[in-house]
Amino acid sequence: MPNPVSADIKFRAQNQLGELYAALDSGTGREVQRMLHSLSPQSIAELLESSPPRIRQVLWKLIDREVEGEVLQELPDEIQSQILATMDTEEMVAVMEGLDADDVADILQQLPERVMAEVLSAMSESDRQRVEGVLAYDEETAGGLMDTDIVSVRPNLHLDVVLRYLRRHEQLPESTDNLFVVNRKDRFIGLLPLTKLLTTDPSVTVREIMITDVEPIPADMPDDEVAQLFAKYDWITAPVVDEEKRLLGRITIDDVVDVIREDADHSLMSLAGLDEEEDTFAPVKRTAPRRAVWLGINLLTALLASWVINLFQDTIDKVVALAVLMPIVASMGGVAGSQTLTVVIRGMALGQVGRSNLSWLLSRELGSGALNAILWSTVMGGVAALWFGDTRIALIIIAAMVINLITAAFAGAILPVALRAMRIDPALAGGVALTTVTDVVGFMSFLGLATWFFA
Amino acid sequence: MPNPVSADIKFRAQNQLGELYAALDSGTGREVQRMLHSLSPQSIAELLESSPPRIRQVLWKLIDREVEGEVLQELPDEIQSQILATMDTEEMVAVMEGLDADDVADILQQLPERVMAEVLSAMSESDRQRVEGVLAYDEETAGGLMDTDIVSVRPNLHLDVVLRYLRRHEQLPESTDNLFVVNRKDRFIGLLPLTKLLTTDPSVTVREIMITDVEPIPADMPDDEVAQLFAKYDWITAPVVDEEKRLLGRITIDDVVDVIREDADHSLMSLAGLDEEEDTFAPVKRTAPRRAVWLGINLLTALLASWVINLFQDTIDKVVALAVLMPIVASMGGVAGSQTLTVVIRGMALGQVGRSNLSWLLSRELGSGALNAILWSTVMGGVAALWFGDTRIALIIIAAMVINLITAAFAGAILPVALRAMRIDPALAGGVALTTVTDVVGFMSFLGLATWFFA
Repeated sequence: MPNPVSADIKFRAQNQLGELYAALDSGTGREVQRMLHSLSPQSIAELLESSPPRIRQVLWKLIDREVEGEVLQELPDEIQSQILATMDTEEMVAVMEGLDADDVADILQQLPERVMAEVLSAMSESDRQRVEGVLAYDEETAGGLMDTDIVSVRPNLHLDVVLRYLRRHEQLPESTDNLFVVNRKDRFIGLLPLTKLLTTDPSVTVREIMITDVEPIPADMPDDEVAQLFAKYDWITAPVVDEEKRLLGRITIDDVVDVIREDADHSLMSLAGLDEEEDTFAPVKRTAPRRAVWLGINLLTALLASWVINLFQDTIDKVVALAVLMPIVASMGGVAGSQTLTVVIRGMALGQVGRSNLSWLLSRELGSGALNAILWSTVMGGVAALWFGDTRIALIIIAAMVINLITAAFAGAILPVALRAMRIDPALAGGVALTTVTDVVGFMSFLGLATWFFA
Repeated sequence: MPNPVSADIKFRAQNQLGELYAALDSGTGREVQRMLHSLSPQSIAELLESSPPRIRQVLWKLIDREVEGEVLQELPDEIQSQILATMDTEEMVAVMEGLDADDVADILQQLPERVMAEVLSAMSESDRQRVEGVLAYDEETAGGLMDTDIVSVRPNLHLDVVLRYLRRHEQLPESTDNLFVVNRKDRFIGLLPLTKLLTTDPSVTVREIMITDVEPIPADMPDDEVAQLFAKYDWITAPVVDEEKRLLGRITIDDVVDVIREDADHSLMSLAGLDEEEDTFAPVKRTAPRRAVWLGINLLTALLASWVINLFQDTIDKVVALAVLMPIVASMGGVAGSQTLTVVIRGMALGQVGRSNLSWLLSRELGSGALNAILWSTVMGGVAALWFGDTRIALIIIAAMVINLITAAFAGAILPVALRAMRIDPALAGGVALTTVTDVVGFMSFLGLATWFFA
């Protein structure tokens, strides 16, 4: 339910951040505490996410104890682990008091196994059971996303009985839009939308108005598939069942929105060799090693390209203009190929691209690549002729660019599909693989043709 | 409300696509029609999105008339315009019959002004007014996202009256989770969650249980800000008001989920010079010109880098090994800089990065960049020494790589911020700007130092 404070909605994280840092600098912890006290848990979480590590630690200590749990559940995994690492078992149990089972499970999963076991045993029996119900499933499946706090009814009830039953509750679970209809064996039968409940004569039974044309989500469905279904059918909540169709829990749209965001970020971050779950404000000691691995891999591919150039050392020695022009062939191939690669990777992520339409997509990319190859190679040929006054160089660069741009289109379309077939993340490996191809083919065609022309 | 057919949820777009194309090839339009008839509008829309243009046209003709509108509203803007272009005014009005005002407004906005006016005048009075209510606002604002079909109540009512009032409705708007509480002048006062309505004694008044600590969304708020609020507070719906706080309509999470997806795609696509709204299966004649512009811009920056190399032609002539190694310096700078650039761009998109914490981020990137610069330049120095047996070359490449990798970290962090300050899209211009910097600095430092060493 929406419940932001006015201070919040006009809260621009950045302005508040500036004020906060000023208050921290001037040493008034009380001033900061007062500011934090006026904000919602979500805004406090935003502040923590946007702060460097040391300031994060300081801020955490100044947060009201009662909202610590709510703030913690809003934070990304990496930051949750950082904060948990500063707490002992008792503190952790206290922090998670009152949170939903799925949020507690999320937080616990950031802990080492031994610590998680300690915290679980320190919880109350009922809390532990609910959380273990969720922990039984992999984080990145429907079972890992679901919450077990659900309201279910039986189909034979009259609606007025249902209404009286609901009135006995102090409150219903957040975002309840449907009640779940189950049979005696707790097997999922259908849904009873609250809106239908409110607009139908109370003498009618649940069975008469419930929606049965529903396929519940199996607990082992991968989370990105769950997200796609939610986005496709505009669901707010969805029932989760086990293999016997017994109702286990429900997933709400807000859990899925996070998955959608991460999924979309995945391609962007992976193409640069980064992890989408990465903490933007991680300290150097954590960032540098990750970057080192990616740079090492790219250095190897760069050395491969250099080895190719080295094969034609003598030709470059003869015609130094080649050294001036050769990077153009390689880089234009890389730029064009990246466009194709990005289109295909996104198409695959959206589930649009597959075996049936790939060949059409490939020929479209080749067509577009060929047209642009002819256009820009001709332009470049003209520039080369004017610059160096040598038509041989012009012809060589035209031919090499045509070859490389068409190769780039082909590679950009085929590589992601091939990588996926080999169970390699196409976004992570695709960019490196593509530039390796366009560099090698670019240098080889340009310098190879030059060697032949200037033999 | 969820209502997929069983055939649907097991529907894997790609498998169905294969069967569909097979059926189309074998010429049985009836077979295809039968297949389409068994699917939900959302699945049909997916099929259309994943099909090449000609097949799309054929499929459109085979869709049941009654679901055409529902299918149309699920399609992305570009494909909507393609389909609308094949229809006359009467057909368009018929297709949009029964759709929500905000979905009709979305579709109409794909039409040229003249045609949109024609279609509007052909609608019924009430339909037209509702749609014009939404059209009054820019597409990419809260007003453009909202629907005007809302249920509101007055605060003085007892809940049993509210319940009787709801029962007189045949149905409530989709995804209704709150009723809106307004005063006599239609000014927004607060929310009445359905869950509260169902769990509270009916003799209580609305005023006693309504939630007033709510800041409604102004109609002119940009859609990405709306999306951020929804994601932050886990809203399902939110009220939209005008400057006088009069209730205009509501936004539901499903409209926002699309914005979240597009927003996230924006960075990915823009870095490759593509539009996130681009139709993956657009024909060559539309794709090629767009790619041409991007390639032209990149050719200019590549020529700039070549001009820099050309300044040092004589040095390369003397020491050909330089031509073999120089691309390594440039490309490593590009790779490292891209990582910094991507982290900052995503941080800015998530609203995490701003003036208060930018300097910390910059020093973290410089720190990580410096450590990696020392590591990989030393490695490369060793490789160069072994390969060419010349310690001067090794020292040159070490120095040049250190210079370029540190420059890359700096540029990757500063460029997106500078571009945003100049009101240029950092994702669109950032990549090109960065590689221009790392190429120029890479070649200049490497070849410049070589010229000095080998003077």
